[in-house]
Amino acid sequence: MPISTVKESEVDVLVIGAGPAGLMACNALANAGVDVRIVDKRPSKVMAGQADGIQPRTIEVLQSYGLAQRLLREANQMHVAAFYNPNPETGGIELTDRTADISENDTRYPFEATLHQGAIESIFLDSMRELGVEVSRPTVPVSIQISDDEKHLTNSYPVRVVLRHGDALEGQTDTEIVHAKFVIGADGAHSWVRKAFDIEMEGEQTDYVWGVVDMIPDTDFPDIRNRCAIHSNNGSCMIIPREGDKVRLYIQLGSKDGVDLASGRIAKQLIGPSQLLDVARRSMFPYVINEPKSIDWWTIYQIGQRVASRFSVKDRVFIAGDACHTHSPKAGQGMNASMNDTHNLAWKLAHVIRGWADLSLLRTYELERRTYAQNLINFDKQFARLFSGKPRTYNNRDGVSHEDFIKAFKTFGGFTSGVGICYAESQIINATHQSYAKNLIVGKRLPPQILVRAADFRPFELQDLLPSDARFKVLLFAGDTSQPSQRMRLAMLAAEMGAVNGFLKTYTPGGNIFAAFDIIAISSAKRTVVRHTDVPELFGSHWSKVFIDVEDMKKTQGGDTYANFGINPMGVVVVVRPDGYVGMVAPFDKVRDINQYFAAFTRPSP
Amino acid sequence: MPISTVKESEVDVLVIGAGPAGLMACNALANAGVDVRIVDKRPSKVMAGQADGIQPRTIEVLQSYGLAQRLLREANQMHVAAFYNPNPETGGIELTDRTADISENDTRYPFEATLHQGAIESIFLDSMRELGVEVSRPTVPVSIQISDDEKHLTNSYPVRVVLRHGDALEGQTDTEIVHAKFVIGADGAHSWVRKAFDIEMEGEQTDYVWGVVDMIPDTDFPDIRNRCAIHSNNGSCMIIPREGDKVRLYIQLGSKDGVDLASGRIAKQLIGPSQLLDVARRSMFPYVINEPKSIDWWTIYQIGQRVASRFSVKDRVFIAGDACHTHSPKAGQGMNASMNDTHNLAWKLAHVIRGWADLSLLRTYELERRTYAQNLINFDKQFARLFSGKPRTYNNRDGVSHEDFIKAFKTFGGFTSGVGICYAESQIINATHQSYAKNLIVGKRLPPQILVRAADFRPFELQDLLPSDARFKVLLFAGDTSQPSQRMRLAMLAAEMGAVNGFLKTYTPGGNIFAAFDIIAISSAKRTVVRHTDVPELFGSHWSKVFIDVEDMKKTQGGDTYANFGINPMGVVVVVRPDGYVGMVAPFDKVRDINQYFAAFTRPSP
Repeated sequence: MPISTVKESEVDVLVIGAGPAGLMACNALANAGVDVRIVDKRPSKVMAGQADGIQPRTIEVLQSYGLAQRLLREANQMHVAAFYNPNPETGGIELTDRTADISENDTRYPFEATLHQGAIESIFLDSMRELGVEVSRPTVPVSIQISDDEKHLTNSYPVRVVLRHGDALEGQTDTEIVHAKFVIGADGAHSWVRKAFDIEMEGEQTDYVWGVVDMIPDTDFPDIRNRCAIHSNNGSCMIIPREGDKVRLYIQLGSKDGVDLASGRIAKQLIGPSQLLDVARRSMFPYVINEPKSIDWWTIYQIGQRVASRFSVKDRVFIAGDACHTHSPKAGQGMNASMNDTHNLAWKLAHVIRGWADLSLLRTYELERRTYAQNLINFDKQFARLFSGKPRTYNNRDGVSHEDFIKAFKTFGGFTSGVGICYAESQIINATHQSYAKNLIVGKRLPPQILVRAADFRPFELQDLLPSDARFKVLLFAGDTSQPSQRMRLAMLAAEMGAVNGFLKTYTPGGNIFAAFDIIAISSAKRTVVRHTDVPELFGSHWSKVFIDVEDMKKTQGGDTYANFGINPMGVVVVVRPDGYVGMVAPFDKVRDINQYFAAFTRPSP
Repeated sequence: MPISTVKESEVDVLVIGAGPAGLMACNALANAGVDVRIVDKRPSKVMAGQADGIQPRTIEVLQSYGLAQRLLREANQMHVAAFYNPNPETGGIELTDRTADISENDTRYPFEATLHQGAIESIFLDSMRELGVEVSRPTVPVSIQISDDEKHLTNSYPVRVVLRHGDALEGQTDTEIVHAKFVIGADGAHSWVRKAFDIEMEGEQTDYVWGVVDMIPDTDFPDIRNRCAIHSNNGSCMIIPREGDKVRLYIQLGSKDGVDLASGRIAKQLIGPSQLLDVARRSMFPYVINEPKSIDWWTIYQIGQRVASRFSVKDRVFIAGDACHTHSPKAGQGMNASMNDTHNLAWKLAHVIRGWADLSLLRTYELERRTYAQNLINFDKQFARLFSGKPRTYNNRDGVSHEDFIKAFKTFGGFTSGVGICYAESQIINATHQSYAKNLIVGKRLPPQILVRAADFRPFELQDLLPSDARFKVLLFAGDTSQPSQRMRLAMLAAEMGAVNGFLKTYTPGGNIFAAFDIIAISSAKRTVVRHTDVPELFGSHWSKVFIDVEDMKKTQGGDTYANFGINPMGVVVVVRPDGYVGMVAPFDKVRDINQYFAAFTRPSP
């Protein structure tokens, strides 16, 4: 008979589900010093299969947490998308085109990284371990309630979750009642949290049925290490090379293949990996795939394209990742959307929990990420239709032409790379003074740019100066600091920004500006005359905080920052959110507008 | 009364001295799987001061052992050399010029790295620990002898070294008799090993006396984070910024400052750091150096410029590093020369110990490194004279002009960066067919170059394809592999190179070519048509071994390899030594010359 004990505990944030969305949330919160716990129903982490594509923007995000180096060491890189289509005479496929896998130029990492989900989870787990946080598993939530009495008090614990730890089959479970300030439900497509609050999934199931096979291939196909879109007269197929020598094949099946006719649902027992490989072989003819030594993992699935009707409950419970959006895996978006959901949410929770921001800040999570998820579904519908369609041939003039496909591929480049995402105007996105930095789009992530440090002429990637440390960043484009008149303007700006009623001091806990903000100055002075000591101390608090807009000493990188960003030469203040998105731009004489920007969601420090 | 025990042991290589030269040797040997031990007389490693500048070539070498990433994470970078000279009117110094610290363009790391010696030693110690090797300390050698009977037998242990482990003052010492195949004396300027074999130091002591102070400065001097050469009417001074906020000042003293007049030798008790700082203040006027909170380390020294008369004894004992050459520290050469000595020696020892090469291979160590050391001294004499000389002024027309100095600075760029070193022709440097790869200078290190991998279009740094793993590398510049005629030539070449009497199989232990060699193919085929499967299996043993000479997909790097290296478009074979230096170039029809190159020093495998 099972032994059962009950304990009670309090935590700032309880994360339910230790997949990519949950782990990103937990790591980011732990990194920000928030009291966080994470539970998962699985007794151990994923070992094979599942999602695997990391888009350029997600690599940037991982880099901002110090995690990209390991990802890049372990992952495969996809630099090329190769397109194969039927040869009109032989009917077999032939190479039509090799293009850049990432068509956007504005990317720091011009490729997609592929690595199995378990390895990506390990990167987070090791980072969390260093921060003292481990996943409790197997642990399942049993009930969840939000107390209406307390929900408006930032420092209350209004969410009551009952957890059952341990494996019931093994006869030992412990029950725990957790009182949390906030709960994140990152518990997958069949989310228990979502169902507990009766949140609907809106959208539909498609007829497209696909099979997936992971293996080490033995083949004469020359593009086996590239992402390939193969349209043949015998079905479509996608190749995704993976870490090591592994390759994933996505294989289009007939709409009835693997579907149980009685229920209309996928039935995995109706098909196996060798049938899937046979279908792949037909579409890849005349190239040969020999029998692989082993199949690492395989599955079949039907594409569902759905978004949750809401992403949060009473500003206290949030759902993220697959729990709130499902779509086809072929554009490689799933894991990226999930991790970016909680990257968006984590800093907002940290600011509210620290007492720096109002609960209202949290509403921007649903605003920003639900819109994104809807766009994702719309994109996915078009892309999946093109991908699953028959190729255009002499006999099938309504089919999908290579030109149609490549056009869509490039049109959606900003979307598939993740760097094109632009959040709409809100209390934290203010584009009023956009014209002062024309190409630094308010709502988009700060693009990569090499700057040179004024004191030692060492080149730095601007994005690396803005780590995900839950602080807002103030980029002070200082103009030409070698000019006395500009230095005078800067001195006046420093006086206004550093004033007791300026945003830096109003919203700064304990009088330490740098607890909530980091400030970086970027001068347009020439290399020969620049002096880091010419920048007012507020903007150059240490010699390492002042940069210049020049090429490095070997003229191989850097320069043209003001031009690339469309910065007004008289100088501009740019506010970058803790997640790396441009929040606001303002000229030197509009400090009061920046003050108002922060006043809209920030609580003055006592 | 001390307790004493004696034990006896055997080891392939015993390294005496755990400074940079000894640690490089030990790490490289352990990395190559050689049975190696290392001892040091100091009870613990250096904590502050001493050498600190790492030149671009040394960073490349560390990268080849997988150690550069950590160095670059911890070290400061010097990108700019700033020159200050007297203002003709005020007499105080002013900025004359800021130039690239590394004037050579052919560098992968266009800067010098600075980090204190203890931190650099830690990088090696941690790497060695992973390979299972620790430094025995405190341990002093007591006697060393080479048995004449055995010295010609590769597998004998002719060197007998008596070691005393432990601190005699603490009353506990153990005596050990070590029988070694080879001994490396890397035991510093006062080398016990050198003295044990009565090896002379040839050269002289100069009159130049310099002081060194390490501190965190508080100053208005705008170039305090750059390498500065300051020539004032009140003496010369050099600034070397360090990791963190630290800075090292080299301060020229009068030839009598700090020298004991009776003995003519430096006497540290005659001067202190505050006197040194006062001298620096006079030369840096009108800039101000406030009193630092603390002085990390300081010393005074006289420049000695000497080279040992020989670097080896009976092909069994070798001296390396400061044990065989001393020079001024201001060109930042000391630690670099030391580490590159043993980087040169280690793979040769590994090959002899494995039975792959004759003892005669070891003679190239002295040949290559003693010539280098003599060049270093010659360079140092000129540089030190310019540096220590008075500036040219209206009153002193024989002084050193800024133009003289900057000219010397640029002339010696290949030397100070380390990338200009060219080993003379020898049994392992054969320039007969240089014209087939005009710019790939036989005797120089293989320069950096970005290649793109044929199978997946991922860019790679060529140097990273040639790790210091004690294997010779064969770079097969394959020509245009999309042409059937070229593929035929390649097939013939593969047949000849892979033949039983070809060098690959003759000198290959156990029939596994890749134990002693790595082979990389570089095709000049176009991106649109290249197929990695077009390269014969000998040259493309795995899809990851075939590269192409194109820009990456974003056109930001790579391409022009054939042009940059002056490669004959019909194809060339390049042999790169295990230490990264080009050993030989040959056209496809001169495989017999490559066979002869290896026959000169390699033993056919049984």
